[in-house]
Amino acid sequence: MLNYEQQERWSKIVPNWQSPINIITTDTIKEKWNKDLLIFDEEYKFINILNKGNNLQYDGRGVAIIEGRKFDFQQLHFHFPAEHQIDGQVYPMELHFVHQNIIGQITVVALFVELGDFNRELGDFFRDFPAVESEKDPFSAKLSLDGLIGNLDSGVYHYLGSLTTPPLVKNVEWWVIQKAITVSSEQLEGIKKRFQHKNAREIQKVNERKVIYYEN
Amino acid sequence: MLNYEQQERWSKIVPNWQSPINIITTDTIKEKWNKDLLIFDEEYKFINILNKGNNLQYDGRGVAIIEGRKFDFQQLHFHFPAEHQIDGQVYPMELHFVHQNIIGQITVVALFVELGDFNRELGDFFRDFPAVESEKDPFSAKLSLDGLIGNLDSGVYHYLGSLTTPPLVKNVEWWVIQKAITVSSEQLEGIKKRFQHKNAREIQKVNERKVIYYEN
Repeated sequence: MLNYEQQERWSKIVPNWQSPINIITTDTIKEKWNKDLLIFDEEYKFINILNKGNNLQYDGRGVAIIEGRKFDFQQLHFHFPAEHQIDGQVYPMELHFVHQNIIGQITVVALFVELGDFNRELGDFFRDFPAVESEKDPFSAKLSLDGLIGNLDSGVYHYLGSLTTPPLVKNVEWWVIQKAITVSSEQLEGIKKRFQHKNAREIQKVNERKVIYYEN
Repeated sequence: MLNYEQQERWSKIVPNWQSPINIITTDTIKEKWNKDLLIFDEEYKFINILNKGNNLQYDGRGVAIIEGRKFDFQQLHFHFPAEHQIDGQVYPMELHFVHQNIIGQITVVALFVELGDFNRELGDFFRDFPAVESEKDPFSAKLSLDGLIGNLDSGVYHYLGSLTTPPLVKNVEWWVIQKAITVSSEQLEGIKKRFQHKNAREIQKVNERKVIYYEN
């Protein structure tokens, strides 16, 4: 029986649900995709760029409607190589669009990047970086996440995890877009040369989590 | 700069967002109520009742659509006195309907109880309790949460907190219905006499959290 006179002794157990994970596609729960799940109607407006040492953080503003809930876009950053894996496949790069809603829930939309055509939408994001760590430079750009993703003719993975950098906050709702976008080798090398080392967190255990695969 | 060679040393800071809280109505963020936020179309079917010492847990099955997401109803339990407070007001009792979705998010719908008319919908829930702690008895009942709440002519408070009993799991989405339902004094006394002590957790700090008030 719970002792309500000694509440300070109650145990707190938090499931260790961290990110990134290797998504095993045969283990996913299949659901039908519905375009109302992720609505990016307005362009995100970027206002500055922060040199975080082994990452660049592009701070911005914008609104997404995710599963009917209004989320404020906060920032975009990159990882080399990609952090999430699909059946063990590692892409050269992954983009993280971080959002938060008024009650504090965090949603990250993850986009894989592969080498291919020059990416016009991301053009502005591959130049003019602050040179010194912790330096924040004004940065003006607009980006349509809809335009970047294009028609979602593959699918989306959805699961509950964490931020992949400290403080590794949990209960982050991840939306990992299956179809990779392309950048040119010049674009990728331009941003990669800024980083001496990889900045991808190690793969974390899935444990008892379920990953939904929304099929299109 | 983050050291990706020593990821095991990365700090994990989790905001201490616990429940219950005292909701200060002047601090809430007002939003317009939309009936699609909480959809309880089907009756919940209860299958057994578990004596947890200082609580009774009614296990059941059912589906709720909460902010467009499908949640499975899991169990109902009671607290004496109510755990949440509205501007310091304490109701004699609070009902918690616990739900979880496929990716592991938890939602609790909280209903305050005050003394008044006999509550027909809850009639079955105030009799035939297992006598011994940890005993689980078959229990067959149906309950419409829509019917119990009635027309939502007041409003709903919504915030991010925790379970109020160990393991005090965080990131629980709370929906606290403003308008109390009534039970008769016979109903309340019948269930209260089973418990020797109060089973309400202490009020927790709101910290930097925002509480939404959905006005009807």
